[in-house]
Amino acid sequence: MDTLPKANTARLAQQIQFVIELDKLKTVLRQTWLTDASRRENSAEHSWHIALMAIVLAEYSPVPVDVLRVIKMLLIHDLVEIDAGDTFCYDVEHNASKDDRETEAADRLFGLLPTDQAADLRSLWEEFEAQQTPDALFACSLDRLQPLLNNQQTQGGTWKANGITRDRVLHRMAPIAVGAPELWEFVQQLLDDCVTAGHLQP
Amino acid sequence: MDTLPKANTARLAQQIQFVIELDKLKTVLRQTWLTDASRRENSAEHSWHIALMAIVLAEYSPVPVDVLRVIKMLLIHDLVEIDAGDTFCYDVEHNASKDDRETEAADRLFGLLPTDQAADLRSLWEEFEAQQTPDALFACSLDRLQPLLNNQQTQGGTWKANGITRDRVLHRMAPIAVGAPELWEFVQQLLDDCVTAGHLQP
Repeated sequence: MDTLPKANTARLAQQIQFVIELDKLKTVLRQTWLTDASRRENSAEHSWHIALMAIVLAEYSPVPVDVLRVIKMLLIHDLVEIDAGDTFCYDVEHNASKDDRETEAADRLFGLLPTDQAADLRSLWEEFEAQQTPDALFACSLDRLQPLLNNQQTQGGTWKANGITRDRVLHRMAPIAVGAPELWEFVQQLLDDCVTAGHLQP
Repeated sequence: MDTLPKANTARLAQQIQFVIELDKLKTVLRQTWLTDASRRENSAEHSWHIALMAIVLAEYSPVPVDVLRVIKMLLIHDLVEIDAGDTFCYDVEHNASKDDRETEAADRLFGLLPTDQAADLRSLWEEFEAQQTPDALFACSLDRLQPLLNNQQTQGGTWKANGITRDRVLHRMAPIAVGAPELWEFVQQLLDDCVTAGHLQP
């Protein structure tokens, strides 16, 4: 990394520093594999994938969502991993410290922005994390659905590598039953088929 | 890749096939390096980066833009590279065949979707490519600005590796003068500083 480029206003300097900082999310690896099983996925490309899924699958929210808000949430939902790292969803021990680590990361990362933008994005991130509003519930559903598809495409990928059982995956997918209930039958069928094929433990 | 998962409606089956196909953009490499110079960037994470930039930098469009439309354009603008590959912007010969290759790719990729969604996204992609509307001009400006920042951060990265001169970069950046004119002074200053530092040929 070189020094930050000069900007002609203090506001632009903050925005450019934030934009440059974002690049680091491309080096945060998730447990999920790409569909061609060539490597693990990173959190930046994962965020792109689910943001685009929001456009294509918006009709499956049980109430109309604000697609722009959903996409914003999905684009920023993993930013805290730049400092806190990706926490594997089935790692119970590591998940106990996740909230504290991520709150500290949010303070630093959103804090790079001008205060108005920092407040806006921080608020959206907190809404996503709280999973109470229809926008957040739908966003969360997509965040769960994408690795499900990648695990199916890689014949059990992460599940097989970590001996994960169907009931644990189903529990992890539960937000979809609320945030995109029309996709719940699809999720269950997919898991059943993965068990039958021997890609997921019953 | 495994066979496609079963879906309970023909429409959902098409959408899921498209979503799974998207994963391939993560394996398309651009010339740009990550800011830590550890590897080349792929087109999926690049698309995430500039979509998030649209949120942070929207105020620099000379006319108010529809941020959702801009983000949609940015999320899909490189999809055609799944079939057509990434064409290095300074490769004159390869760029001559770019339009034909990308049109064919757009036919196949957007054609995976239900017809209403295929038409919507195809139309947005064509608007981005034509660079005539304020939304498309602003989107294009971000697509140019991000590699500029990454090249600055990697002390000339792609420019140095390919012996690119300041005037060629400035010509490549020209859409920013129209799509985000308040950022034009920043761009010129950055290029001057890169020349002074020996990271870009004068």
